[in-house]
Amino acid sequence: MSPRTLKLTISYDGTRLVGWQRQAEGESVQELLESAMARLEGAPVTVHGAGRTDAGVHAIGQVASVVVTCGHPLDVIMRALNASLPQDVRVVDAREVGPEFHARFSARAKTYRYLLRNGSTVSPFERMYVWHVPEPLDLGAMRQAARSLVGTHDFQAFRSAGSTAATTVRTITRSEVTDPPGSSLLVPPGEPQGIRTSLGDPRLLVYEVSGDGFLRHMVRAIVGTLVEIGRGRRPASSMATLIESGSRSDAGPTAPPQGLFLVRVDYD
Amino acid sequence: MSPRTLKLTISYDGTRLVGWQRQAEGESVQELLESAMARLEGAPVTVHGAGRTDAGVHAIGQVASVVVTCGHPLDVIMRALNASLPQDVRVVDAREVGPEFHARFSARAKTYRYLLRNGSTVSPFERMYVWHVPEPLDLGAMRQAARSLVGTHDFQAFRSAGSTAATTVRTITRSEVTDPPGSSLLVPPGEPQGIRTSLGDPRLLVYEVSGDGFLRHMVRAIVGTLVEIGRGRRPASSMATLIESGSRSDAGPTAPPQGLFLVRVDYD
Repeated sequence: MSPRTLKLTISYDGTRLVGWQRQAEGESVQELLESAMARLEGAPVTVHGAGRTDAGVHAIGQVASVVVTCGHPLDVIMRALNASLPQDVRVVDAREVGPEFHARFSARAKTYRYLLRNGSTVSPFERMYVWHVPEPLDLGAMRQAARSLVGTHDFQAFRSAGSTAATTVRTITRSEVTDPPGSSLLVPPGEPQGIRTSLGDPRLLVYEVSGDGFLRHMVRAIVGTLVEIGRGRRPASSMATLIESGSRSDAGPTAPPQGLFLVRVDYD
Repeated sequence: MSPRTLKLTISYDGTRLVGWQRQAEGESVQELLESAMARLEGAPVTVHGAGRTDAGVHAIGQVASVVVTCGHPLDVIMRALNASLPQDVRVVDAREVGPEFHARFSARAKTYRYLLRNGSTVSPFERMYVWHVPEPLDLGAMRQAARSLVGTHDFQAFRSAGSTAATTVRTITRSEVTDPPGSSLLVPPGEPQGIRTSLGDPRLLVYEVSGDGFLRHMVRAIVGTLVEIGRGRRPASSMATLIESGSRSDAGPTAPPQGLFLVRVDYD
């Protein structure tokens, strides 16, 4: 068979994983996918991801590319991969693409989502998927600060220590905080919302950000800063000031990984 | 302090638990709650649950009663319990009730929910909360069969081997299968639904049943039978026939525990 390039869309629960990239210790998505694919191909393969996700970070629609020679139909490949993979990693789409396609270099935009549970109690069903912030949060200030990120900026202030990115300039096309109604994660739509406490009505705050690329830990540093703004520890305008200053020490703490989801990667 | 009777509402993710009731091995919700409460009370306490849930079964609103002498306000008790409990068990409500209240004997009705993922793939985020049934299911037949359970019947056919219930007559007030639109469990409401596969559009089927009481494994045996009806292995009318026959060997297999949730317990 001649080589085929496959575009795989992958969903994973990052709770027990060491992240996308192979590490010396622990299970990575890349390693699990390469092993599953090698079993099908009968030879070692290299899988390229659209971007790394850190340990504990989840993905709804990570994208990977791989070149294979096996001639199986796409639905057979998808079923075989899912039969090999553990249940916390699923291939949810498989397509054949042109030989020029590369999950990382062809990516035009990415969307991340971060879930914050704002209230006294976190439901046991969402403990692995939200950051619990019990203090009251000023949603208006967080919204305003989030919106000020839209545009082309130097995001040096959100760059993490180990980052090796050549440039820290990125274009953000959307950056919004919402508090959707009916926000229990595990209650089927149309149902009365289940998890209520006598200490008040917990809110789910959803931060969504889309852009042409993100520095390592950038989304989590943005969320950490947004929460400081929501708590009133710094003004909403400090987000814009922070971008101008470019000083990492001025940004908020890095938000924990379990609230973060890579939602989507867009290509031409 | 004079004794106070507390009514606690508890939510738990049953994945790693041995169920509600204390067992020789493994962690039970009862044991965890009694330990947390004893720490607060400074003496051993006994917690009574509205009903047992089996290993792996979840609860959104299990109810427990306990008699204590500590004088703390209810919100302090709730916070202290949640600080002691592991994150997969949460006290979501605490109220003071009359001394005659007993979580089990005062219960008038219970509602259970069972989630079925019907499609080729299960999202990694719901793998612990659904039963995956990949084959096509006839929803109309399942609905009809479910409705035929409403009323006062002898549910001997759904009684499990170890059951010691004095009578197997129960009154079911609601028994319905629905397929709510927008059925990804971990996508905030109002969002486009995330988990799609090229192999078709997975449906979430939700079975809800309310009644004055349930025999051990009864809901899971009902769901196992409903799925056999959905698969076309038996007619919808066989549910009514099964109740008339009272023969356990005629019922379907017991559905797995991870799809089952105790949703609510009602009191006068």
